[in-house]
Amino acid sequence: MEKGNLRIGIDIGGTNTVWGFLDSNDNYLFENSIQTHAEDGVDRFVLKLSEKIQNDFKKFSDKYNLEGIGIAAPSVNHLTGVIEKAVNLKWIEVDFINKMKKYFSTQIVIMNDANAAALGEGSFGAARGMSNFITITLGTGLGSGIVVNGQLLYGENGLAGEIGHSIIEVNGRKCSCGKFGCLETYISATGLKRTVFNFLCYFDYESELRDIAFNALTSKKISELAEKSDPIAVKAYEYTGEVLARSLSNLVCMFNPEAIILFGGLSESGELILKPIEHYLDKYLLDLYKGKVKILKSRLQNGKAAILGVCGFVKETIEKNKTQLSMSELK
Amino acid sequence: MEKGNLRIGIDIGGTNTVWGFLDSNDNYLFENSIQTHAEDGVDRFVLKLSEKIQNDFKKFSDKYNLEGIGIAAPSVNHLTGVIEKAVNLKWIEVDFINKMKKYFSTQIVIMNDANAAALGEGSFGAARGMSNFITITLGTGLGSGIVVNGQLLYGENGLAGEIGHSIIEVNGRKCSCGKFGCLETYISATGLKRTVFNFLCYFDYESELRDIAFNALTSKKISELAEKSDPIAVKAYEYTGEVLARSLSNLVCMFNPEAIILFGGLSESGELILKPIEHYLDKYLLDLYKGKVKILKSRLQNGKAAILGVCGFVKETIEKNKTQLSMSELK
Repeated sequence: MEKGNLRIGIDIGGTNTVWGFLDSNDNYLFENSIQTHAEDGVDRFVLKLSEKIQNDFKKFSDKYNLEGIGIAAPSVNHLTGVIEKAVNLKWIEVDFINKMKKYFSTQIVIMNDANAAALGEGSFGAARGMSNFITITLGTGLGSGIVVNGQLLYGENGLAGEIGHSIIEVNGRKCSCGKFGCLETYISATGLKRTVFNFLCYFDYESELRDIAFNALTSKKISELAEKSDPIAVKAYEYTGEVLARSLSNLVCMFNPEAIILFGGLSESGELILKPIEHYLDKYLLDLYKGKVKILKSRLQNGKAAILGVCGFVKETIEKNKTQLSMSELK
Repeated sequence: MEKGNLRIGIDIGGTNTVWGFLDSNDNYLFENSIQTHAEDGVDRFVLKLSEKIQNDFKKFSDKYNLEGIGIAAPSVNHLTGVIEKAVNLKWIEVDFINKMKKYFSTQIVIMNDANAAALGEGSFGAARGMSNFITITLGTGLGSGIVVNGQLLYGENGLAGEIGHSIIEVNGRKCSCGKFGCLETYISATGLKRTVFNFLCYFDYESELRDIAFNALTSKKISELAEKSDPIAVKAYEYTGEVLARSLSNLVCMFNPEAIILFGGLSESGELILKPIEHYLDKYLLDLYKGKVKILKSRLQNGKAAILGVCGFVKETIEKNKTQLSMSELK
């Protein structure tokens, strides 16, 4: 029997790195993950990641050829393929493809994680068939992918879409990028935690949250307590929804998208976050846009959108190479 | 002698409406203007404007045929051509082309004023040859035109680019759109004036500005006093530059443009506004983008960019019609 083709998509996040195997019909065959631990250095990470993936692939190697690997990572410069100043990974100028080539002799491509998620959502998720939409990934940080006239917005240097570092509060919270008041210091898993600690200071409600240290607190815990009507947790979600709604309304002013699609941990909190977003969107949205934009939750499992998107990019790259090859044969 | 062709471009602003005549080689033959007085109603305005233009055209009618009229106006829906809820004109749902057709039997087109300015700047001004740039018009309000991959960004409903109504201050200044804290309540001729009055309250510096009533104060006066080192006027410009730099840095995060081009009254204040912008851009710009974006002053005279841009749109429309006509003849 002839072997099938298999592509591997890797989504490198600030906390976890997830990879998935896709066959040529885009069936999602397998998924695994490791903790990123970026602070140990990029070489150690690439070694650990590659060994794990090689090991996982052994189970498939009698049925499939490895056709290519796609990597979705933060702060990837679209034009050079280099990871530039990725603040949540603390890596500066990493040529990740080159490092991966030590372990894999196949087509390897890399793209910005938020752009990959946008491609995935556009092909397989809630944005299917849309030409103007924005995807926002609410993870350790806040990433965004912007699609305009059916195409990803890359900008002049391949660096567009860093919405997480737009300043939404003058002299606001210190961001890992060095600036103050960046959106992602408010709207992200870490941002929610910071809000909780601000409210533990500001309000005098009793709350279970007063017994948990900053480093011990997870966003899962905050969401559990909010479900049980803990006043600090509830207010923290409300505030997060307000700030996010304000930012979304600003994006609508600029891009007039058909939809904004929310991904990642924070968006999994369901009504806790979606209700305040809806409430405050009505307050902040310019009349002109009312009823013209949908705020949607991703229909794809967490992380899967970026993996699907970057696997699509692998396929596209392989096909482009084939066309170029057959054209050069024509000469 | 055969007559030449002439296009008329009209730029409708909150305070003044300017029109210019262009020959087929884009030579700017003539310019005139009236005060808009939008509060008198749109019909009265169209009557006054049309009479004036008809009168002006008499001087050219023995040498030129009127080939078409292009109108640049705020809040024009690109898809319908209707002026929708133009907050600075207080007009709601105006089909301006239809109203103009009572007075002119020629091709009439309409487009958003900020988009027209972007087209003009891209073809004739500082953005010549650029594929990714943003133009910001600082007049009575704040308009913007966004060019991405060489094309104007219209968005899903033709309503993209309303940067002036992005919220930059929670519970900030009341805006004519009904919201609070919109960018244009800070960054515009009126915004500068509001800042002056805020500073007359906050600081206790002596200043000539303490002798001028709100309605009597012009931005020209503020700039004259700033040139003479009036402390309130100087601080007002500094603050305006800071807020603008913060907003520009946010735009850079989203669009990664090659340049942002400033137009209109406030940008004419030269170093008074450009120096603080430069200073604060260095503070607010994400490291990733430093050295990658130019902040430029329009190279075209005030208002001229929109007139040139919309005249280009007239030409494009006429040529498209001709192509369609000749294609229908082929059948």
